[in-house]
Amino acid sequence: MRKILVIGSGKSSSYLIKYLLEKSITEDLLIIVGDINFTHAKKLIGDHENAQAILLDVFDKHSRQEAIQNADIVVSMLPARFHIEVAKDCITFNKNMVTASYISPEMQALDKAAKDKGLVFMNEIGVDPGIDHMSAMQVIDKIREKGGEMILFESFTGGLVAPESDNNLWNYKFTWNPRNVVLAGQGGAGKFLQESTYKYIPYNRLFRRTEFLEIEGYGRFEGYANRDSLKYQSVYGLDSIKTLYRGTMRRVGFSRAWNVFVQLGMTDDSYTIDDSENMSYRDFVNAFLPYSPTDSVELKFRHALKIDQDDVVWDKYLELDLFSRTKMVELKKATPAQILQKILMDSWTLDPEDKDMIVMYHKFGYALNGKTYQIDATMVTLGEDQTYTAMAKTVGLPVAIATLAILNEKITTPGVQIPITKEVYTPILKELEDYGIIFKEKEVPYLGYNPLHV
Amino acid sequence: MRKILVIGSGKSSSYLIKYLLEKSITEDLLIIVGDINFTHAKKLIGDHENAQAILLDVFDKHSRQEAIQNADIVVSMLPARFHIEVAKDCITFNKNMVTASYISPEMQALDKAAKDKGLVFMNEIGVDPGIDHMSAMQVIDKIREKGGEMILFESFTGGLVAPESDNNLWNYKFTWNPRNVVLAGQGGAGKFLQESTYKYIPYNRLFRRTEFLEIEGYGRFEGYANRDSLKYQSVYGLDSIKTLYRGTMRRVGFSRAWNVFVQLGMTDDSYTIDDSENMSYRDFVNAFLPYSPTDSVELKFRHALKIDQDDVVWDKYLELDLFSRTKMVELKKATPAQILQKILMDSWTLDPEDKDMIVMYHKFGYALNGKTYQIDATMVTLGEDQTYTAMAKTVGLPVAIATLAILNEKITTPGVQIPITKEVYTPILKELEDYGIIFKEKEVPYLGYNPLHV
Repeated sequence: MRKILVIGSGKSSSYLIKYLLEKSITEDLLIIVGDINFTHAKKLIGDHENAQAILLDVFDKHSRQEAIQNADIVVSMLPARFHIEVAKDCITFNKNMVTASYISPEMQALDKAAKDKGLVFMNEIGVDPGIDHMSAMQVIDKIREKGGEMILFESFTGGLVAPESDNNLWNYKFTWNPRNVVLAGQGGAGKFLQESTYKYIPYNRLFRRTEFLEIEGYGRFEGYANRDSLKYQSVYGLDSIKTLYRGTMRRVGFSRAWNVFVQLGMTDDSYTIDDSENMSYRDFVNAFLPYSPTDSVELKFRHALKIDQDDVVWDKYLELDLFSRTKMVELKKATPAQILQKILMDSWTLDPEDKDMIVMYHKFGYALNGKTYQIDATMVTLGEDQTYTAMAKTVGLPVAIATLAILNEKITTPGVQIPITKEVYTPILKELEDYGIIFKEKEVPYLGYNPLHV
Repeated sequence: MRKILVIGSGKSSSYLIKYLLEKSITEDLLIIVGDINFTHAKKLIGDHENAQAILLDVFDKHSRQEAIQNADIVVSMLPARFHIEVAKDCITFNKNMVTASYISPEMQALDKAAKDKGLVFMNEIGVDPGIDHMSAMQVIDKIREKGGEMILFESFTGGLVAPESDNNLWNYKFTWNPRNVVLAGQGGAGKFLQESTYKYIPYNRLFRRTEFLEIEGYGRFEGYANRDSLKYQSVYGLDSIKTLYRGTMRRVGFSRAWNVFVQLGMTDDSYTIDDSENMSYRDFVNAFLPYSPTDSVELKFRHALKIDQDDVVWDKYLELDLFSRTKMVELKKATPAQILQKILMDSWTLDPEDKDMIVMYHKFGYALNGKTYQIDATMVTLGEDQTYTAMAKTVGLPVAIATLAILNEKITTPGVQIPITKEVYTPILKELEDYGIIFKEKEVPYLGYNPLHV
C-alpha cells in the first residue's frame, strides 16, 4: 500500500481525508493522519481499514521525521507557520509535499533543493489561494490560445453563511477564524491597478470603496479590495494588464456597517484597554465617543458617524446588543479588536444546523481583433453540515486530488509551485466538477471603465 | 573661567548660545560650541572673546571624550537619539548634563549612576517638553498648597506662524521639522481621561475631535489630542484626576482640512509609490481616488470627502495647487507622506522675513471646600527673525538658564530628571519672564463636563 501522511486534522482536513479514504481501496492507499490531538485524528478516520491515526507533535523532531520517512507523500494541513520543518524533512527524505498555504519565503527557498531532487512541492492549492488560481488560469490560458490579450482581471472570494442559514441583519456569520475577519484589511494600504493607474486605498476607506457583484440564483454581493491585488500579476503573466483587482466578498451592506467599527477604532489590535474586564458592551462603545453628562451613547454614536435616525444600518448595531448595559466584556486587558470579536461571536457564531457557503467571482476582460470582450465566471459551493463545510470541501478536495495525482505521477514537474499550469489545473478542476465545484462562465459586455477606450 | 560645552549648533541653539554669551563676562564663562559643521558653530558665536567653536563629531569617541573632559558642564542639543553616548561620558568624567529632549529608556537607566556620583542630568527642559512641565507644576503646586484637589488638567502647545506673517488659508507654516507635522498623530490611538473614563481616538478621527481655545489678543485656536495624554499623570502626581488631556494647537479650521489628507491616505509613510518621480500633484491625488473616464479629479475628491460646492475648505486645497497638472512630485520611490510634505513645503515654508510663534494653553480645574474652580494659563511668544525664532527662544532659554543654575549650584538634586520641582521651576520661570515668556493666569468658571457633579 502507498502511504499518504496527512499532518493536522483540523477543520479543513475533513473533506480531504474523506476523499482519500474513498479512494483508498481502488488506489491501494494507507491514509495516516497525524495530529497532536489523537482523538481528533481518530474521529476523522473512523474505523476505516485503510487508515491509521497517530499521535504526532510536529515540534518533536524524532517522531516527525519517523512519520515522514515512513510515508510516500506528505500533506501538511498545519497552520502555515509550521510547514517549514516538515518541508525540510521532505527534502531530506525525498518526499513530495502538498499544502494549501501561501508560499512563505522559507518555503520558496527550498525550490532549488526540491528541483535538484525532482520533488513536487505543491502549495496554495486550497480555495483562496487555490481554486482561484486554477479557475482563473484556465480561462486566461483559453483567452490567450485564441489570440486574445488580457486587459482586465478582477477576482473575488467570500466565505459566507449559506442562504438557508442566513438569518441575521449582517448576512454574515463566522465560518472561519473570527480574528482574521475582525483584522481584515489592516497592515497597509490596498493597492490595485485601474485602467493602467495604480490606486491606493487606506484602511479607513477600504470598506467604503466596494463594488457590487451579482450571482444568478444567489442575488447581490459586494467586494472590497485585498491588501495587495498585484501579488500574482507576474505569476499569472499579466504584466501589461490595465485593470487588476482582487477582493473579498460580503453580502450587500456589510461593509458600510463594518466601516463604523473601523472609524471608531474598535478593530485596533495594537493596544489594550485597562479595565476591559469590567466594561459592559455599552462602556466599550462609549470609550470611543466624547464624554457627555447628558447625551446617550446611542446619540453620540449616531452623531459621530452621521447615521440618520431612519437609516436601517442602525438595526445592525442593535442586533449585536452593542449598547447593552448588562452584557459584559469579561476579557482581561483586551485589545479593542479582541473585545469586538467577542461581541460579534455572540451573534455571528454558527448554530449547530447552520451551513456555510463559498462564493467566487472572476471577471476576465480581453481584446481580440480590435474588439473588447468579457467573460464572467462564478462558483458557489454550499456546506453539508458543520464538519463537511463548504470551506473544508473547497480547501480539502483540491489538496486531496493533487496529492493523489502527484502520487500517481500525473503531476511531475518538480519544484516549489502553485497550481497555475495546465498539467495541474486541468485534471483537478475537472474532478472538482464531480463534487459540485463548478464554475459557470458567461459572456458579458466588456465592463471596462473607459468609454473612449483610452 | 568655567567651561560650558554646547554640543550641536542647530536651529534650537541660537538663543541658548546668545544667553550664555551675554552672561559670560559677569559669570566668568567660556562657551565652547561643538558641531560637526564647524562653520555653523562659528557663526553662532561670532567673534565673542568668551567663546570658542570646535569641530566635534559625536561619533568620534576620542574627540568627544576630550571635549567632555575639558568642560565643567555639558549641554547636548543633538537630536535625541544621539544623547546617550554623551551622557555615558558625563557619568565617566563626572559632568552635569542638560538636554531639551524626552528621557529615553537608555537615559533613564543612568539615573542610579548619576545619583551615586551626585550628578544632575536635567532633561525635557525646552518648550514642549519643558516650559509646559514647569508652568503646569507651578500652578498645580500652588493649588495643592491652598488645599485644593486637582480634578482637571488640560495642556496644549502649538508651534505656529506669528500673526503678522500669517498669510495663507491654513494659518500655518512649517516652523519646525515638516516631517513630524505630516506624521503627527500616527503610531497608535490617542488616549486620555475624561471625567474618570478612559477615552480612545483612532488616527482617522483624531483631527475631527478638536476643541476650541481662545487666547486674549490672539483669537481662537483649536487643539487635537496627543497620542498619550497620560504620560505624565503619575509624574505630576495626578493619579486621581478625573480629566487629563494633552494636545497640539492649530488655528481654527486646520484640523478639519488636514483630516482630508488622513482620510485619503496621503499621510501614509509605510509604502512607496512606484512611479512617484513622474507624477504631477494631480496624479498623486488621483491615486487615492477611483478611476473615472469622465469625472474630474476635483469632483471625485469632493465626492469622496463629501465637500459641498460652497464649503470654503476647498480654497485651502486650491491654495496648495493640489490639482496642478504641471507641478511635479519629482521624488523617486517616495511614500505618500514624503510627497505630501513636498507639496506642503511649496506653500508652507517661511519667507525670509516671516516670524514664528509658540502658544501654550493650560486649564487647571480643582475642588476646594466643596466648590469647583478653574485657572486658565496662557503664554504666547513671538519670534524675532529666522535665527532668533520663538521656537529657539522657548527651547534654548530654559536650557541655558538651567545650565547656569546647575553650574552655580542653585540646582543640586542629583539624578536623571525633568523640571517639575520648585527648586528648578521657580527661578527659571521667573527669569524667563525677563525675556517675555510670561504666563497669564485667570480665574474662570469651572469648565468641567458634568453639571450633576457625578
